[in-house]
Amino acid sequence: MAIKTLNVNEDILNANDVLAENLKNRFSQSHIFVMNLMSSPGAGKTSVILKIIEALAKKFKIGVIEGDIASDVDSQKIAKTGVEVLQVNTRGACHLDANMILSASNSLGLDGKQLLIIENVGNLVCPAEFQLGEDIKVMILSIPEGHDKPLKYPLMFTESNALILNKVDLLPHTDFDMNELRKTVLAMNPAIEIFPISAKTGEGTEAFTTWLEGKIATK
Amino acid sequence: MAIKTLNVNEDILNANDVLAENLKNRFSQSHIFVMNLMSSPGAGKTSVILKIIEALAKKFKIGVIEGDIASDVDSQKIAKTGVEVLQVNTRGACHLDANMILSASNSLGLDGKQLLIIENVGNLVCPAEFQLGEDIKVMILSIPEGHDKPLKYPLMFTESNALILNKVDLLPHTDFDMNELRKTVLAMNPAIEIFPISAKTGEGTEAFTTWLEGKIATK
Repeated sequence: MAIKTLNVNEDILNANDVLAENLKNRFSQSHIFVMNLMSSPGAGKTSVILKIIEALAKKFKIGVIEGDIASDVDSQKIAKTGVEVLQVNTRGACHLDANMILSASNSLGLDGKQLLIIENVGNLVCPAEFQLGEDIKVMILSIPEGHDKPLKYPLMFTESNALILNKVDLLPHTDFDMNELRKTVLAMNPAIEIFPISAKTGEGTEAFTTWLEGKIATK
Repeated sequence: MAIKTLNVNEDILNANDVLAENLKNRFSQSHIFVMNLMSSPGAGKTSVILKIIEALAKKFKIGVIEGDIASDVDSQKIAKTGVEVLQVNTRGACHLDANMILSASNSLGLDGKQLLIIENVGNLVCPAEFQLGEDIKVMILSIPEGHDKPLKYPLMFTESNALILNKVDLLPHTDFDMNELRKTVLAMNPAIEIFPISAKTGEGTEAFTTWLEGKIATK
């Protein structure tokens, strides 16, 4: 007798890919550029979004989707800037998926917006597997996390178009080896753009927002 | 017609709970105390384990199970101390489960060991849901991650018996509010023990290893 196998994870990922492809078409029709921002908890996703808003809100109409398991502390920070924000509480789920982004886009409204920033759940593992119909994936690694992280969480580093190295102001107080990090990451993903920044002091953030602006302009 | 529903996540968690209960009995019969150590990537799990080994390896026979998606960089650090270590590569899975710990315990061997330390995959979300037959769950939050994390990742904080606040040497360079953190965590989990430490400078680590020694002694 043939054995039936239920490949649960595979089925979930395939279904998500189909939905993500539809979302991507929809975003294209709306002429909106979509960035999926991922990192460990506390690496600085919200701080980086605030820097993007500071640099680009006068040039582009921005919307933000905030993914969190619980709470709306990040959305509150975004809302203070006057940018439209929608909080998605995943109620335990460790990542955002295309279905959540479909509902969230409907609630937020895409009309007239040119840049949609999606802040994923703080997690260096699961979000890397779920396409959200985005144009680019950007990840943040913060200096105190250490330069050995690409070896331990390879998918996140190979999937991302850009890597922001946040909290460079803490470099003198850690053993972080910048050359080692660059060497490891570029061996895994030669096309990745690397931006060392400090969202706290503002160092290096302009290089990133200028790169992002170029990406938006070419869509 | 009745609709059949497949509650995939629920089924997986229930099956894991049954296996974890069996593991717990097995650990008890072997008189081995088991600690499940969890945190975000780069919060300092391996550094804390090295401090535990430094303090307790002369008193107890220790074994370590290292969980990572990929690589064995942490196992190599543990092996240098002479303590027996087994690397589990989850090949993409974002947490350890009871089945992995069953296989790992068989490979490592429990005979004569008194303390088994399980270093979970770096993730503040998924590991909190999977019981591993452990006696205690210990989590690490590192200072640069910020004091708002309990609100965003509540399950990890409510499930843990002890919270290590690592990298207190970086306190002067961050906005971390220790009082706010304590207030939030204790409101969610009044029984949790909180240990501010620096695995780098050694500050506060003795308080934690003494508490752990007490826990092992009472088993």
